[in-house]
Amino acid sequence: MIKAGIVGGTGYTGVELLRLLAMHPQVDVQVVTSRAEKGLRVDAVYPNLRGFNDLCFVAPVVENLTACDVVFFATPNATAMTMAKELLAADVKLIDLSADFRLKDVTVWEKWYGAKHACPELLEQAVYGLPETNRELIKHADLVANPGCYPTATQLGFLPLLKANVIESSMLIADAKSGVSGAGRSASVVGLMSESGESFKAYGVPGHRHLPEISQELSQLSASPVSLTFTPHLVPMIRGIHATLYAPLKETGINLQDLFETFYADEPFVDVLPSGAHPDTGDVRGTNRCQIAVHQPQGGQVVTVLSVIDNLVKGASGQAVHNMNIMFGLDEKTGLDQVGLYP
Amino acid sequence: MIKAGIVGGTGYTGVELLRLLAMHPQVDVQVVTSRAEKGLRVDAVYPNLRGFNDLCFVAPVVENLTACDVVFFATPNATAMTMAKELLAADVKLIDLSADFRLKDVTVWEKWYGAKHACPELLEQAVYGLPETNRELIKHADLVANPGCYPTATQLGFLPLLKANVIESSMLIADAKSGVSGAGRSASVVGLMSESGESFKAYGVPGHRHLPEISQELSQLSASPVSLTFTPHLVPMIRGIHATLYAPLKETGINLQDLFETFYADEPFVDVLPSGAHPDTGDVRGTNRCQIAVHQPQGGQVVTVLSVIDNLVKGASGQAVHNMNIMFGLDEKTGLDQVGLYP
Amino acid sequence: MIKAGIVGGTGYTGVELLRLLAMHPQVDVQVVTSRAEKGLRVDAVYPNLRGFNDLCFVAPVVENLTACDVVFFATPNATAMTMAKELLAADVKLIDLSADFRLKDVTVWEKWYGAKHACPELLEQAVYGLPETNRELIKHADLVANPGCYPTATQLGFLPLLKANVIESSMLIADAKSGVSGAGRSASVVGLMSESGESFKAYGVPGHRHLPEISQELSQLSASPVSLTFTPHLVPMIRGIHATLYAPLKETGINLQDLFETFYADEPFVDVLPSGAHPDTGDVRGTNRCQIAVHQPQGGQVVTVLSVIDNLVKGASGQAVHNMNIMFGLDEKTGLDQVGLYP
Amino acid sequence: MIKAGIVGGTGYTGVELLRLLAMHPQVDVQVVTSRAEKGLRVDAVYPNLRGFNDLCFVAPVVENLTACDVVFFATPNATAMTMAKELLAADVKLIDLSADFRLKDVTVWEKWYGAKHACPELLEQAVYGLPETNRELIKHADLVANPGCYPTATQLGFLPLLKANVIESSMLIADAKSGVSGAGRSASVVGLMSESGESFKAYGVPGHRHLPEISQELSQLSASPVSLTFTPHLVPMIRGIHATLYAPLKETGINLQDLFETFYADEPFVDVLPSGAHPDTGDVRGTNRCQIAVHQPQGGQVVTVLSVIDNLVKGASGQAVHNMNIMFGLDEKTGLDQVGLYP
Repeated sequence: MIKAGIVGGTGYTGVELLRLLAMHPQVDVQVVTSRAEKGLRVDAVYPNLRGFNDLCFVAPVVENLTACDVVFFATPNATAMTMAKELLAADVKLIDLSADFRLKDVTVWEKWYGAKHACPELLEQAVYGLPETNRELIKHADLVANPGCYPTATQLGFLPLLKANVIESSMLIADAKSGVSGAGRSASVVGLMSESGESFKAYGVPGHRHLPEISQELSQLSASPVSLTFTPHLVPMIRGIHATLYAPLKETGINLQDLFETFYADEPFVDVLPSGAHPDTGDVRGTNRCQIAVHQPQGGQVVTVLSVIDNLVKGASGQAVHNMNIMFGLDEKTGLDQVGLYP
Repeated sequence: MIKAGIVGGTGYTGVELLRLLAMHPQVDVQVVTSRAEKGLRVDAVYPNLRGFNDLCFVAPVVENLTACDVVFFATPNATAMTMAKELLAADVKLIDLSADFRLKDVTVWEKWYGAKHACPELLEQAVYGLPETNRELIKHADLVANPGCYPTATQLGFLPLLKANVIESSMLIADAKSGVSGAGRSASVVGLMSESGESFKAYGVPGHRHLPEISQELSQLSASPVSLTFTPHLVPMIRGIHATLYAPLKETGINLQDLFETFYADEPFVDVLPSGAHPDTGDVRGTNRCQIAVHQPQGGQVVTVLSVIDNLVKGASGQAVHNMNIMFGLDEKTGLDQVGLYP
Repeated sequence: MIKAGIVGGTGYTGVELLRLLAMHPQVDVQVVTSRAEKGLRVDAVYPNLRGFNDLCFVAPVVENLTACDVVFFATPNATAMTMAKELLAADVKLIDLSADFRLKDVTVWEKWYGAKHACPELLEQAVYGLPETNRELIKHADLVANPGCYPTATQLGFLPLLKANVIESSMLIADAKSGVSGAGRSASVVGLMSESGESFKAYGVPGHRHLPEISQELSQLSASPVSLTFTPHLVPMIRGIHATLYAPLKETGINLQDLFETFYADEPFVDVLPSGAHPDTGDVRGTNRCQIAVHQPQGGQVVTVLSVIDNLVKGASGQAVHNMNIMFGLDEKTGLDQVGLYP
Repeated sequence: MIKAGIVGGTGYTGVELLRLLAMHPQVDVQVVTSRAEKGLRVDAVYPNLRGFNDLCFVAPVVENLTACDVVFFATPNATAMTMAKELLAADVKLIDLSADFRLKDVTVWEKWYGAKHACPELLEQAVYGLPETNRELIKHADLVANPGCYPTATQLGFLPLLKANVIESSMLIADAKSGVSGAGRSASVVGLMSESGESFKAYGVPGHRHLPEISQELSQLSASPVSLTFTPHLVPMIRGIHATLYAPLKETGINLQDLFETFYADEPFVDVLPSGAHPDTGDVRGTNRCQIAVHQPQGGQVVTVLSVIDNLVKGASGQAVHNMNIMFGLDEKTGLDQVGLYP
């Protein structure tokens, strides 16, 4: 059994890790930390876990975590970077669900996250944990930077097109929509149901932190420079991301359906839907699956890709478990082979 | 492996059976019927099942089902009764999720369901499939009448009180609230999100079909005659039932918390919450669990019980799988041991 | 034109007052206070008011308000009581939407609100602003305690029955459900859409602050002592309250429909629906109207009343404007004659 | 008083017309037709109209409508065209909220709407009723084709850019999102809350009927040929459209904020938000207002416009009333000067 620890167990990615790992046959969660809820039973805070977890929250200090084989950081940004070095030195593998190790360029990181990075020397070593692009590196990684939710949905949609070099990478558009759980479980006015229910709006149009992350990764795959316009929106639902992606095609005679199906043929968690389909976030609810459709409306110059994930699973905790499975040599689908909760 | 068939695979209880059975290690679903979708792949209609189910819908005729060990009816009312006799004669065990076999008195059934019953002679033999009251009968049953969603949440809340004879059974009130999936997957105006979203209303106050079912079952458990006022309401959410139950106490010095905890100590799917708790339908989403709290507001004469279930799982398909586990001698929790999808 | 001031203009009852008064032909809102947003334009915080309001928020101090004819307190509890005396001394009429002046017994108030009352001497003078019971007193009042949202829906439902003395007042049950805007516009975890969306739960079952308010008022109308069990629930919608009320009938031959229709025949904002109806919160959205239906299920011993309001209008700001109309001798419907926003 | 008739009074645009006209001081609705509800009181079907409308539905035949000054068609497509000629001959002004008269080219219409047009000779005479572009024509029109909801939000966003000739019209992208009321009030599976709640999806990506309408109108305003990719999505809310629009800028030094503010300075129902804003559909709920913001993310080559309306008001019935006001020489804001229902 893999001994696992979770730092920051009271946010949505934390409780989702607890849900997934409770059903994982080869993991034993031994430590869950929370500064605010220290001493409380985990299932007193999360009644959905009653009967599945007998732990109490402990303080988020290194000593509590060094006996673990793997530690997940489900913390706000700028926390994992303060504990990473000591844990790595203690031979603990780390999977960081926050943004601390996603950007390779520390200057870019510090500009977008408004803080000084505590261990820039680890950025090079950190592996960006998108299995569909970095599987081999993940196998041997000690420190995995789990991708953001928007970046996951967006990259999986653009990936086959950029690799095949069939789109103009200088005018990519990602119009992305997220359920409200993406904003986390912190008290706020903007997250109130009275504010975010029965309404729809964009946010962060001038610039969102996921933009440099997506740009960095897409640029690595692209033959030519990438220029991306990224617009996140808030949907009055809890779980789910829908990325609607646009790009000008270099030529129009390409069989895009075939391109996507071939590209993802062996991927356990990317499901290319039949031609003409419109994926629905409701079909991947609770699962680690990305469902994708590719369209060329009216046979024109623009390709439209529709990509849906559950932001808390494939966009966060499920992908983290997937990364753990790869790092520990398990079957990749272990603990993640669930049917979407429809309706 | 148990060979299972599902009649009426295109409604919500049908697709929920498919979801649960896809993750059940000892069941192989071999037949799924649908009059309307005959010939179509199941996962073409339900993309959440892609990769989990390779079947095509077949016609709902007896010949297609006689090789099954068990057949689930996830059909509208008045369908199962037309096929039950032939299937029983072919040694197929039946679990009917509709109302055809729930009422013992055929006159009452015909009054509330507005039809002539096709096989009243089977009503006596049918076992009402609430495991918490009828476990022993279910073990040996060939025909199980799976309880309704409201009746499940309501009975589990009143049960400990009636058995202990501590309430006046002549003035029971069940104020029940259901998510919209309870109305099924048929085209309707009233079920449109424009109608049922952002609004709340009662329905069926003069009389709802679940009233005689609840009354029949509670009367069997009660020392004195039962008189119940039952008010169903429609909640703008998809899954979940919350029953708020009221009854006058015969005496006020009873330890109600202890009464409930003791009563349900050995039940795998009823979870009595700590004193003072308020169960939330969101904590049992996707699971076969009933979470219950009992209150005596201001130490007064009225006991208030709060009982929540997922109407499609403990209120329908999960309870059906539970019944199947009991009928086939499996561990009761097989395939049903899942964590609620929160948030 | 009536010169109006609003203290606490950034909560939901405050912005709703601004909406209603912007369309009121005889009121000029001259002052809106907010401690937190002082100096900001009102329509910068509330873009729905662009073009209807050119004011900036000012500090909530007495000097800013003494030139008003009427001041509305849309503040948290325990604020109005600190400014009321000085404003009354300056001949300003006050309408308090908070709970400071609703209870006559200062001991009861201090127990439920956990604070020392700042001006208990005003409690006697304050008029409870439910026009349907206190119209004459309101006409001459200087200080009106605007009722709570649950108390409004609940009292209007029980009122005709208690006045006619046809129910046992010793076992009243009010099972009430509210949209999330009732919790106000303060940052909180419990109010997040991720928490309150797609779920349903009761709260405050051991005791809610609206219980003593309802009990006080119903007791005044009832010939015999009132004992009420009150259960509030949170509905995943923004606006609306549905109160489902139960009481044992003293006799069963009463024409309840006629009783209600006669009782409310002249009330401009209470609409008794036809026999057999189920009122829907969606039909009164945005309006000052209470829609009510009365049922006697199966002709039995229990009367069931269904009463719906918009908690922010008839349950708060609309009722406050109604009270103002009465206090200033205007036609009661002035500024309030709007059609419900359906769907 | 203007005598008005409404054909098709039982759909959402019909009941919304009834709501708006009930509060319009110069209109008297004298006829409301419905084939299905003929003979029923209007307020028996729509309890929100109780007290505002005493009519009964009558049959949708020409004789019932010839005494009207104006008739609104709130019907499914292909109905208005069968009655238009006779009503025009009877000197009735017509405002068609359906698509029958929106396209100038009958071939295009017949291709997209799959029917033979009943009176192609009226297409030339019909005025496309977007007041912001066609005010002068509308003044003298007898037959107004009221724009679609998506086309309204989309055109208002692209209009200032195309008129100023600052964008490449050959690569326009309109990523549009609509609440579910846009699908109307017909029984359907896809519109069930169980299907459309808590989920998000695109639809009609290969081609949607609003595409030719938008293309036709934008082409008239543009100096160069227009090529538009249009992607509609379904949002789990009832009312509201959010169009997110993208276009390559011809040059980057333009003051876009100023361009938009100047362009719409005199428009009563288009509100350009301050620089940096993100309009929210919730702020225009129930109103005839379009709120717009314009962004140039990272000062790059792509302009992003955010445009929100209430699909049932500015996207349908409110715009129809606006057109009526213009046709009858009334102040344009008459009956439409309402504050958005927030929250």
